[in-house]
Amino acid sequence: MKAGVFDSGVGGLTVVKPLLEEKLFSEIIYFGDTARVPYGVKDRNTITRYALEAVEFFKNFDIEVLIIACNTVSAYAIEQLQKDAPFKIVGVIEAGVMALKCKVPQRKSNILILGTKATISSGKYEKFLEYEKYSNIISLAPSLFVPIAEEGLFGSVILEEAMKHYFKDISSPDVIILGCTHFPLIAKDLTNFFPNALLIHSGEAIVEFLKYNFKFSKKFEETKLKIFASDNPSNLKKIAKIWLKREI
Amino acid sequence: MKAGVFDSGVGGLTVVKPLLEEKLFSEIIYFGDTARVPYGVKDRNTITRYALEAVEFFKNFDIEVLIIACNTVSAYAIEQLQKDAPFKIVGVIEAGVMALKCKVPQRKSNILILGTKATISSGKYEKFLEYEKYSNIISLAPSLFVPIAEEGLFGSVILEEAMKHYFKDISSPDVIILGCTHFPLIAKDLTNFFPNALLIHSGEAIVEFLKYNFKFSKKFEETKLKIFASDNPSNLKKIAKIWLKREI
Repeated sequence: MKAGVFDSGVGGLTVVKPLLEEKLFSEIIYFGDTARVPYGVKDRNTITRYALEAVEFFKNFDIEVLIIACNTVSAYAIEQLQKDAPFKIVGVIEAGVMALKCKVPQRKSNILILGTKATISSGKYEKFLEYEKYSNIISLAPSLFVPIAEEGLFGSVILEEAMKHYFKDISSPDVIILGCTHFPLIAKDLTNFFPNALLIHSGEAIVEFLKYNFKFSKKFEETKLKIFASDNPSNLKKIAKIWLKREI
Repeated sequence: MKAGVFDSGVGGLTVVKPLLEEKLFSEIIYFGDTARVPYGVKDRNTITRYALEAVEFFKNFDIEVLIIACNTVSAYAIEQLQKDAPFKIVGVIEAGVMALKCKVPQRKSNILILGTKATISSGKYEKFLEYEKYSNIISLAPSLFVPIAEEGLFGSVILEEAMKHYFKDISSPDVIILGCTHFPLIAKDLTNFFPNALLIHSGEAIVEFLKYNFKFSKKFEETKLKIFASDNPSNLKKIAKIWLKREI
């Protein structure tokens, strides 16, 4: 069983990592639209158009499921992508909400959603969470977290000051949804800032979601990985080697 | 006389501002490729391809000169763009170097070039400056400055910490080249950090460059402005209204 993973850039590799560890698939085809990243500041039509082009790309491969690692695409385009794709398409938002339901049954919990501007203004996480009767929800688009993570400035004064800035009106949340593929990279910093918050990670959520919704008859010895980029593949390859700790 | 101004996004409006003040043109057509911004992290081929598409767009207008406000495009694609365009094409790097030569004749001056990753790794500013016999040149790509400027965090602790981070090995420069259209927005913060440095601003440089290279027989009463974006025109319009202090 082969899977595709689509992201606007390199961030989706944080979703690939737990998928590789689980060995559910014989092969994963990753496509990062690095030429047009970031999607999180674009509008709905552009995001959908680019995502439809990615679905066309994955038609060249014999995959059974396409995982949309990008929260922004999951927020705006899932339904349209699902329309005429010859494979199943799953997004990280549904998966994240399912993970939250399992781990945090208390409907009165304080939930903090972090995402890109586009993800947050879509209101999709809120919609799903309200449908599940969660009520104490705050959404935030801390735009600087992505470039800070990309600069590798973990544990830095800059990141600490950025957290102080964005979180100045937030009192200790019970749960933080990492609603952007880059945010697992700053998970440790977020935990230092909010020591009591449980973090919901898209990659781990998608693994559980797949196990729940698909029949996996066996585990593979190893999951092969192929990586494609719309620009600068060497950069993506370099980051993949570091994050995934394997040759590509 | 009509002019086109091309930028990867909203930043080029910092170049439009002094052009409007000078009233050299009857009309300015601005195109920001907001759907695919930023260019500064993309590779040479992608940047050139996107810029060639922008030149095609400007062929729909009766312009005499196209100003490439984007430093990254000016660094990689100017020669190729000039090949078969039916109008003159000028870039901000040549203009910036000319401005520096006029204002800072001392060849031993300490020059700090700030730009995107792509602009800096092109080495184009250095090449021009070395040709002009400047020798004390340092180049830097402080990637966080752009998103910090876009978040409007001028005079913030975050920006101060970011400057401390990027400038930790820089001792007081005589000149700073603002080699990215966003950097004029943080000019005041840069001056607070390096009070003795002269700043070279692409917009002002391009005005001088145009006056030197073109014949402007008269000033117009007002320069009309038309703005186009490849995505989210309302956002560009909103920023243009604030930055340029006029209705669009």
